[in-house]
Amino acid sequence: MSKINLDSLLSQNASHMRPSPARSILSGLNIEELISFGGGYPNPDTFPVDDLKRIVDRLLRESPSISLQYGPTEGDPNLREELAKRYYSQGVDITKEDIAITTSSQQAIDLCSKIFINRGDTVVCSLPSYFGALQSFWFWGGVPVGVADENSLESTIIKLIEEDRKPKFIYSIPDFQNPSGITLTLAQRENIIRVAQLYDLIIIEDSPYRELRYSGDDLPTLLSMDRERVILLGTFSKTLTPGFRLGWVVANPSILSRIVVAKQSTDLCASVFDQAIAARYLRDGLFESNLVKTIELYRGKRELMLECFKRYMPKCVSWTVPEGGLFLFVTLPVRYNATDVLKLTLIEDLAFIPGEIFFCNGEGKNTMRINFSYAQNEKIEKGVKILASAINRVVSTTHIPL
Amino acid sequence: MSKINLDSLLSQNASHMRPSPARSILSGLNIEELISFGGGYPNPDTFPVDDLKRIVDRLLRESPSISLQYGPTEGDPNLREELAKRYYSQGVDITKEDIAITTSSQQAIDLCSKIFINRGDTVVCSLPSYFGALQSFWFWGGVPVGVADENSLESTIIKLIEEDRKPKFIYSIPDFQNPSGITLTLAQRENIIRVAQLYDLIIIEDSPYRELRYSGDDLPTLLSMDRERVILLGTFSKTLTPGFRLGWVVANPSILSRIVVAKQSTDLCASVFDQAIAARYLRDGLFESNLVKTIELYRGKRELMLECFKRYMPKCVSWTVPEGGLFLFVTLPVRYNATDVLKLTLIEDLAFIPGEIFFCNGEGKNTMRINFSYAQNEKIEKGVKILASAINRVVSTTHIPL
Repeated sequence: MSKINLDSLLSQNASHMRPSPARSILSGLNIEELISFGGGYPNPDTFPVDDLKRIVDRLLRESPSISLQYGPTEGDPNLREELAKRYYSQGVDITKEDIAITTSSQQAIDLCSKIFINRGDTVVCSLPSYFGALQSFWFWGGVPVGVADENSLESTIIKLIEEDRKPKFIYSIPDFQNPSGITLTLAQRENIIRVAQLYDLIIIEDSPYRELRYSGDDLPTLLSMDRERVILLGTFSKTLTPGFRLGWVVANPSILSRIVVAKQSTDLCASVFDQAIAARYLRDGLFESNLVKTIELYRGKRELMLECFKRYMPKCVSWTVPEGGLFLFVTLPVRYNATDVLKLTLIEDLAFIPGEIFFCNGEGKNTMRINFSYAQNEKIEKGVKILASAINRVVSTTHIPL
Repeated sequence: MSKINLDSLLSQNASHMRPSPARSILSGLNIEELISFGGGYPNPDTFPVDDLKRIVDRLLRESPSISLQYGPTEGDPNLREELAKRYYSQGVDITKEDIAITTSSQQAIDLCSKIFINRGDTVVCSLPSYFGALQSFWFWGGVPVGVADENSLESTIIKLIEEDRKPKFIYSIPDFQNPSGITLTLAQRENIIRVAQLYDLIIIEDSPYRELRYSGDDLPTLLSMDRERVILLGTFSKTLTPGFRLGWVVANPSILSRIVVAKQSTDLCASVFDQAIAARYLRDGLFESNLVKTIELYRGKRELMLECFKRYMPKCVSWTVPEGGLFLFVTLPVRYNATDVLKLTLIEDLAFIPGEIFFCNGEGKNTMRINFSYAQNEKIEKGVKILASAINRVVSTTHIPL
């Protein structure tokens, strides 16, 4: 058996891959004892276990030969129908023909990268932005350009065009952004649409958290403001279960057909079984009632987390107050490093994600993303105490050069 | 709402995509009446519906918070453990660390393309070969070079090297190949390994049908002959259910780790729920007993199909006699076109796949792939009659220039 010369065989693509640092932070920890403010995990109490049991039982009695067979690449027609009805009831006038099901919305992001990005192409995103999206852009050879302030979106795009680096698309998470927790105002949404139309850009509206609003009023989706150039990505991961790996894309037919062909050679179709379960879950009206309970639970956790932050955090720390979603974003004075804080909290089994990974330009060393949906309530208070004490230690021991 | 200029925004990748012609052949047909010799569909009678019902019920009672949550990219540890045990019992000495779970083996093929193929790279495959693999190679800008006769494998590779087009890997389906139904002999397997070692090539051993042997004796997997450079791809699609979209990769650690990172930005992980079901299904020993029943069923269908072929086919037609798997491959005299035959059979609701799509060099117009696993027995006989009569009509009406 001869030894392989792997380096000479790997593709350029393989050399552009960046593994997720979050995974290495979380691996090797004592999971039993762990207080996780880390992942974007939904709380297991929100999983509708009994409803799913009943649905699977009925499904396997009534239509096993469909739900266990291959299915169409664009997804289960019943599921697409149910999703379309939901959007329609929310004032977005679409049919199932406008929707394709993907294997998680991560795959939807990756398929968009696949069909739009040539090596070296720029794409515009927020600073900070979702790491999984950056990872996909990088993989395809894209160059994400971060916009820290929504007001500088147009000037950033003008500058890129002047440098002959016109972006392919704007990637945005308008509602309760990951990692910042921030929601775009109506004026900011109108501005994104105006800029995209003026400079002929696609907008990818990543919308995993939109349904999880705990205060304030819904604002229109970008999709509803421009059906032609906005691609909306949705997911069941935060509102039903991430275990199914089911997401979806809403886009105009010429874009959607390309996404479907790109998906075909990727995995043929998403889990047909899980799609059939999700379709029945929606059809039976179970989604809405479970969503109400989920919002209730998360609203309480957000309140508790914010209270604990107010009570325990040192004065020099600031944080966002999200109207929904799963995250607070925390900022230390610029000279302090969140990774130093993490080293201390991990000793006491508290994990969070240093904000740096969400900054495509390498900034954000003094920031951290704090998830409030997953941890049990007693662990939230305990965790914030540990975090505050670790920050205090880093602040008091960091040597600041004069 | 301004009109989008999509062509200027799409990537080169998007222009390399080829949709599956099989899909368009099969769409729009009367599914109720259809006799399908088309897809590579397992027979629904093989789906272990009652076992799955029991497993899901127990799973959702005992560990819902794990099976409905996010999971590791490399897959459910229990499932990887069960798969490793199975290989071990078959004489392949691997552990779960050598296995990663993918969202179908189509995804495994695509991830291999992703990490090995640069635009313009050649890869060597059989002539004919699985269309989904060709589709993925093309998408990544690969140039599949087909080898019609296993004896010309080495000379093809020498020629490519002389032309400075050394292939990245050999893609092979050694057992009951798709579409040909042919199984490589031991000498042919040894030759592939020798050639790969001599010229430092990877081998992708696509192995979806291996468990489905109806006659003859098992031959060693390529993997067992070289653990360093063979990547074996497996799947539950033909032996449990394609509805779960679960496949796996066995490879050496340096390759496997790249596949896992490549998967991370693709869809994070395969359906955690379906993986948990499959793991219990294996652990409870249900896989083996269902496999025995499946082999029994398909052996009968193969016999029936071959009998009907002998009885009804005109003399000028030849076909392969597969020892396992799902397909016969049928050859008409070179001057006749299988697509002309298909046009006639579709009128009578019989579908099959013209063999041309499996030939990366555009040949094979006179061939067809015939699936025998899906159709009910009475439809097999009816379908072969329709097929034979359509072939007779094409043969008698095709104008052959002198």
